[in-house]
Amino acid sequence: MKRAVGKRTLKSMSVVWQNYNTASPSPSTSRAFSYRIIKSPPLLSLDLPDIWTSDYTHFDPPSISKCGISVEVRRMKESIGKVPGLAVILVGQRRDSQAYVRNKMRACEETGIKFEMTELPDNCTEDEVRNILSSFNKKPSVHGIIVQLPLPQHLDEMRILDVLSLEKDVDGFHPLNMGNLAMRGREPLFIPCTPKGCIELLLRSGVEIMGKNAVVIGRSNIVGLPASLLLQRHHATVSIVHAFTKNPEQITSKADIVVTAAGVPNLVRGNWLKPGAIVIDVGTNPIEDPSCEHGYRLTGDVCYEEAARVASAITPVPGGVGPMTVAMLLSNTLDSAKRAYNFA
Amino acid sequence: MKRAVGKRTLKSMSVVWQNYNTASPSPSTSRAFSYRIIKSPPLLSLDLPDIWTSDYTHFDPPSISKCGISVEVRRMKESIGKVPGLAVILVGQRRDSQAYVRNKMRACEETGIKFEMTELPDNCTEDEVRNILSSFNKKPSVHGIIVQLPLPQHLDEMRILDVLSLEKDVDGFHPLNMGNLAMRGREPLFIPCTPKGCIELLLRSGVEIMGKNAVVIGRSNIVGLPASLLLQRHHATVSIVHAFTKNPEQITSKADIVVTAAGVPNLVRGNWLKPGAIVIDVGTNPIEDPSCEHGYRLTGDVCYEEAARVASAITPVPGGVGPMTVAMLLSNTLDSAKRAYNFA
Repeated sequence: MKRAVGKRTLKSMSVVWQNYNTASPSPSTSRAFSYRIIKSPPLLSLDLPDIWTSDYTHFDPPSISKCGISVEVRRMKESIGKVPGLAVILVGQRRDSQAYVRNKMRACEETGIKFEMTELPDNCTEDEVRNILSSFNKKPSVHGIIVQLPLPQHLDEMRILDVLSLEKDVDGFHPLNMGNLAMRGREPLFIPCTPKGCIELLLRSGVEIMGKNAVVIGRSNIVGLPASLLLQRHHATVSIVHAFTKNPEQITSKADIVVTAAGVPNLVRGNWLKPGAIVIDVGTNPIEDPSCEHGYRLTGDVCYEEAARVASAITPVPGGVGPMTVAMLLSNTLDSAKRAYNFA
Repeated sequence: MKRAVGKRTLKSMSVVWQNYNTASPSPSTSRAFSYRIIKSPPLLSLDLPDIWTSDYTHFDPPSISKCGISVEVRRMKESIGKVPGLAVILVGQRRDSQAYVRNKMRACEETGIKFEMTELPDNCTEDEVRNILSSFNKKPSVHGIIVQLPLPQHLDEMRILDVLSLEKDVDGFHPLNMGNLAMRGREPLFIPCTPKGCIELLLRSGVEIMGKNAVVIGRSNIVGLPASLLLQRHHATVSIVHAFTKNPEQITSKADIVVTAAGVPNLVRGNWLKPGAIVIDVGTNPIEDPSCEHGYRLTGDVCYEEAARVASAITPVPGGVGPMTVAMLLSNTLDSAKRAYNFA
């Protein structure tokens, strides 16, 4: 399953090839495959044009495949005196949401994208959120808008998101975007960031998707659904496993590629996987751990130690898919600005 | 796999239970399962309210589950003096398209739905089609519009369909409809007729979908894609098989339900199926046959004789899914009229 990957790409992608024996907590266990950890590139590496080269076809914006976000932002600024702008609406005081938003802010700063945020109290009304959304919709310097989810329970997510301008929906959650992603011959304005990041990781790691058996675990609107649609666009044979699936391990054990976004820690055991499988773990589940700074640590959907013995490549949690999601958000925002300014 | 089905329902659904030995061309072949042929109800049976009872949940319009189309059309006429209207645009002289349109016209006549059609010559312009579409969009007595596909090659299907009013898109092919069908928590205005007919056939035949392994063969926007989304809505574990799938028979042979819409005659052989599987054949492939009136006969994607020895239930071609498609079109048109007149 190992594939030739260019040296520079390898380095900039932080793809670590290593023999299981040096990584495993139980080196004596026999295994058939050495595996590699697919980690996201550090965001600064977005500056390196060469790592954005991929086989991503059809609907991949040239900005991703040709050069880094920062280079493109700088080029835009020098050419037309404008930069892309991302606006975030954050409701309430959830610590995880605050952390996610901080990551996005930092990534914007690093790449030269203008970042602005409106914070609202936990008990704000739906109208307040919608009004702020409307004002961002109208603001020409804002090209991407994010309503940080989840919202407090008293707010109707769908009714709020329906206000968001389709041209600024950089999360790609609008049903028209999703329909265009699903239908052959059509192109969505934006591809949802996390699944787009999963595909990028696969392609940058030289994993061929066409004709492969792929299983997506979980069918959320945010990850599972668009991931299954994207894998199909890349001509994988896709099966979608969910809570009603009987004997899910029988299906996953036939898969060349497993993308899991179930939100269940350690759901995917070693015996769920085919030897040599590629595993993309989107789960980010907080697990109580008094030894950690905040009293918890993040763990994925995959029982990492077991899976690493069987898989040929696997993403860790944290550090695997998460940073790619942020990178794809920047890329979507850049594309949106290019469209708005008609900048090629 | 046999299930109790009420006597009246059985009769009106034309479901034929029979032992293979009486139906097979080679009665000596051993087989483990008797099977049944799932045929569509004759359209007149739409008058019988009882056969529209089903377990169809969530997004099933009450008109289907409660009573027949004709009864509803009559009730509407008596209450508010209006009837549903369906408009068809037919371009060119394709014999198969003409036959399909004739079926729709007859079905409208039988149920009291007003039918109108505009025919255009093969060499008409895109603007001509769009102008007629626009006029149907504006016409209050038209509640459903169909552009009979395929269109002649010089016409851009997508650009034409984009003109069609979302509220009258009874084929359900608009990407916003498809996105709403795909996303959990959202509801499409219309469900595409053929896949909706497949699900109806399953439910009316007492087939439980939840938790079953379902395989959809083919991923067209018209059948394969929406069929896979609908089966997922009903909580099946869905795999989508297509031209790039290696060893498709390995996937289909694990399926409890197989829906095939590949357009390849006799693609699905007996050994592709799990004993006891339910097989819905959407293929309608013309096969040369000098002994037939028009020099050809229609055949499905399934090698019927072989499959019938293995399956517990199977739809024939013709007479299986086709009539259900027309019935679902009427149902969508009725729903659209009810929405337009705010008639419950």
